[in-house]
Amino acid sequence: MHDSLTLQLLGEFIGTLVLVLLGDGVVAAVSLKKSKAEGSGWIAISLGWGLAVTLGIYCSAFLSPAHLNPAVTLGMAIAGVFNWSYVVPYMIAQILGAIVGAVIVWINYYPHWQETKDSKAILGVFATGPAIRNYPMNFISEFIGTFVLIFALLAFTRGKFTQGLNPIVVGLLITAIGFSLGGTTGYAINPARDLGPRIAHQILPIANKGDSDWSYSWVPILGPLAGGAIGALAYLLIP
Amino acid sequence: MHDSLTLQLLGEFIGTLVLVLLGDGVVAAVSLKKSKAEGSGWIAISLGWGLAVTLGIYCSAFLSPAHLNPAVTLGMAIAGVFNWSYVVPYMIAQILGAIVGAVIVWINYYPHWQETKDSKAILGVFATGPAIRNYPMNFISEFIGTFVLIFALLAFTRGKFTQGLNPIVVGLLITAIGFSLGGTTGYAINPARDLGPRIAHQILPIANKGDSDWSYSWVPILGPLAGGAIGALAYLLIP
Amino acid sequence: MHDSLTLQLLGEFIGTLVLVLLGDGVVAAVSLKKSKAEGSGWIAISLGWGLAVTLGIYCSAFLSPAHLNPAVTLGMAIAGVFNWSYVVPYMIAQILGAIVGAVIVWINYYPHWQETKDSKAILGVFATGPAIRNYPMNFISEFIGTFVLIFALLAFTRGKFTQGLNPIVVGLLITAIGFSLGGTTGYAINPARDLGPRIAHQILPIANKGDSDWSYSWVPILGPLAGGAIGALAYLLIP
Amino acid sequence: MHDSLTLQLLGEFIGTLVLVLLGDGVVAAVSLKKSKAEGSGWIAISLGWGLAVTLGIYCSAFLSPAHLNPAVTLGMAIAGVFNWSYVVPYMIAQILGAIVGAVIVWINYYPHWQETKDSKAILGVFATGPAIRNYPMNFISEFIGTFVLIFALLAFTRGKFTQGLNPIVVGLLITAIGFSLGGTTGYAINPARDLGPRIAHQILPIANKGDSDWSYSWVPILGPLAGGAIGALAYLLIP
Repeated sequence: MHDSLTLQLLGEFIGTLVLVLLGDGVVAAVSLKKSKAEGSGWIAISLGWGLAVTLGIYCSAFLSPAHLNPAVTLGMAIAGVFNWSYVVPYMIAQILGAIVGAVIVWINYYPHWQETKDSKAILGVFATGPAIRNYPMNFISEFIGTFVLIFALLAFTRGKFTQGLNPIVVGLLITAIGFSLGGTTGYAINPARDLGPRIAHQILPIANKGDSDWSYSWVPILGPLAGGAIGALAYLLIP
Repeated sequence: MHDSLTLQLLGEFIGTLVLVLLGDGVVAAVSLKKSKAEGSGWIAISLGWGLAVTLGIYCSAFLSPAHLNPAVTLGMAIAGVFNWSYVVPYMIAQILGAIVGAVIVWINYYPHWQETKDSKAILGVFATGPAIRNYPMNFISEFIGTFVLIFALLAFTRGKFTQGLNPIVVGLLITAIGFSLGGTTGYAINPARDLGPRIAHQILPIANKGDSDWSYSWVPILGPLAGGAIGALAYLLIP
Repeated sequence: MHDSLTLQLLGEFIGTLVLVLLGDGVVAAVSLKKSKAEGSGWIAISLGWGLAVTLGIYCSAFLSPAHLNPAVTLGMAIAGVFNWSYVVPYMIAQILGAIVGAVIVWINYYPHWQETKDSKAILGVFATGPAIRNYPMNFISEFIGTFVLIFALLAFTRGKFTQGLNPIVVGLLITAIGFSLGGTTGYAINPARDLGPRIAHQILPIANKGDSDWSYSWVPILGPLAGGAIGALAYLLIP
Repeated sequence: MHDSLTLQLLGEFIGTLVLVLLGDGVVAAVSLKKSKAEGSGWIAISLGWGLAVTLGIYCSAFLSPAHLNPAVTLGMAIAGVFNWSYVVPYMIAQILGAIVGAVIVWINYYPHWQETKDSKAILGVFATGPAIRNYPMNFISEFIGTFVLIFALLAFTRGKFTQGLNPIVVGLLITAIGFSLGGTTGYAINPARDLGPRIAHQILPIANKGDSDWSYSWVPILGPLAGGAIGALAYLLIP
């Protein structure tokens, strides 16, 4: 990790870019027509998102503490292992990285959007959506998933995600949450991961795209922030 | 691991809660209607349960030795690496954690119970059941699985599940038992993992639930305890 | 590893027992009727066999060098990292362990044999068989797979399979060979793994069993021994 | 790693041979008729290719730095962690290893080519091809995948792929790129991996083979070289 805030922010930008590139990428691979991975299903998505986070951490660890997630940044600040004055700049860098990562997914799969007529599947590459729309319960699902994420991160890394094989362990944690809790809302558990690509979906001239479902967009922002904050407090309560 | 018994019990409670939340969670994800992971099958379940145990250990290791399983607690006491006077309190903490974990699974997947009409599938999220009902052979399956579990745990960790990457190795062991021996009874191999969620299933007002199959419930309690005890004795017999 | 040959042989017996119990177990889980894992396919089999070897090593490492495979024992002797005078007793212990492991698979899945009418599927739980019967090419497939196995084991462990995370790396090697080379003959790559369970299949009163296909049985014995020997020699040739 | 260039080249030859043997092998296993792994799909391919790279590194690490990929060799030279004068000999050794690896895949699956009537599936075992033929976008896909590969390798290993568990981490990186970015062109991300087997496909008397699609062959050569070069430069730009 670098001393300079600017380089830390660059690290968060790069890491979240890679996280979204590989994470949204695996959803594209599984969902888009004529993709070689079409139909590989939830196992590919859960494994792929776990690896996306592992690689995001490895790609940013030489610069930043590799939060790559506003809910993590907030949780680490609450837990006392991160400087409060850096919270807002970190979050902005993460959201910017997520937007650029989503743009590169669009470029990588460029010929496939034309072939994919299902506009919900296209939105699903970028942003999460509920299996059953029920705002309070969807919020609770995001809350639970992110609570587990932050509590577990504090319990086994105390905020040091980048040491040794911790990036792999963090990736396994993401895969576990995906397998076990993600069936309901698609486990954003990261406001940048949802908001950034949703902005990209809104702006980009994607073939066959529909609307960006902004009415749902607060759930994967507030649910993870609340879950991360309370998860960190719960950890602090233990003597 | 903490010196205080109270905090150790809190650790067992938290760890078993996480284990059941993620473990029963992956069965819910695969079994419940409209879940994004619906139909992902046994590979998702085996990988998901292994990760559930890994994360349960990581979430409790700062407080307790992370048994998270009465058969493990019994086996470690027989093997001489755990204090007999703590056995009963540990088991109670584990069962309580398992109940609460199952309640949170119910909450996380709340809108999905309504959509799922198959009451056996709903019970299957909480408690194990036999592929072919045959009490003696079902008992033997649970015995064999837990014998392998305890013998392997002693052989490669000597009761120290929480050091280094051991939580991952233990998770791989659970995944291996699931893949290879779990096809018969769904590998409880842990009385708390079965009894706690079965109690939750009995008590909770779950939509579309049927009965809790108490006539089978002794198998995933006594089979694992017997297998764990004999597995530990077998390890002790080796000079 | 223990100094006493008797305890080393016990280690090889236990490790190969576990290897076959979990390895043949995953084939049973995927192939037998009414198993909860029925139809999980080659991914489950490749992952399950890799984990079976990892766990076999972990369960025997406190007693023996964890060869668990006559082709490995032969290869290590040729490479000069194992005592020639122990080769035959090791092989006998491995075959005996494999027989007992297969018997326990039969017990674990006892009610499922009755439900499974396909006698070839039943034999496939115990012994390997060719996708296309062609003795010279089947021999060459087993030769290639075991050559890669022994060369890789020597290159990255120099015969020390039990240290640190090496048991996991060896399991990944088995999974890789299964995924990539096993589509032809089912990758015995281990004479004990094939001969022991085939003997068990011959002897046990398994419901719905057919013949034990002894006409093929020399391929998964001689192919792996030849591949292991030449693989070790190839490694020795490099300065 | 060895001091002698000759032995380093032998290492690159062996490692790339193993990489292609196991990597093309898993595509053969999944694609060829009557293979036991037939139809296992993209999950098997992504996991299998990751393991192929891990094992390629483990098999060559005692001799060479285990680049096994001309784009990696070029990137490491640009990044200043590899000697420019060795670049061309390394690339030649890698391509020769890839050719021999592909020949062994042909031998291992010998009876299966006869059974497989789809000449495109046969070519797909050896060389990559686009899901949607669009040369500029296919080039960009290969560029993006290899950019991520080289940047990530530099960020977390600084060119030391062979130390400790780095071979596993590199394999996970390959699996991640496969899952997330490979749906478009099949992720060559390695000119030797594509050119070597394509030459083998051209020369070998494979049953049912069609043409070797040389019109596409420049994409998986130039795309990875460009992506690797720019990825290394991007890493260098960060202070």
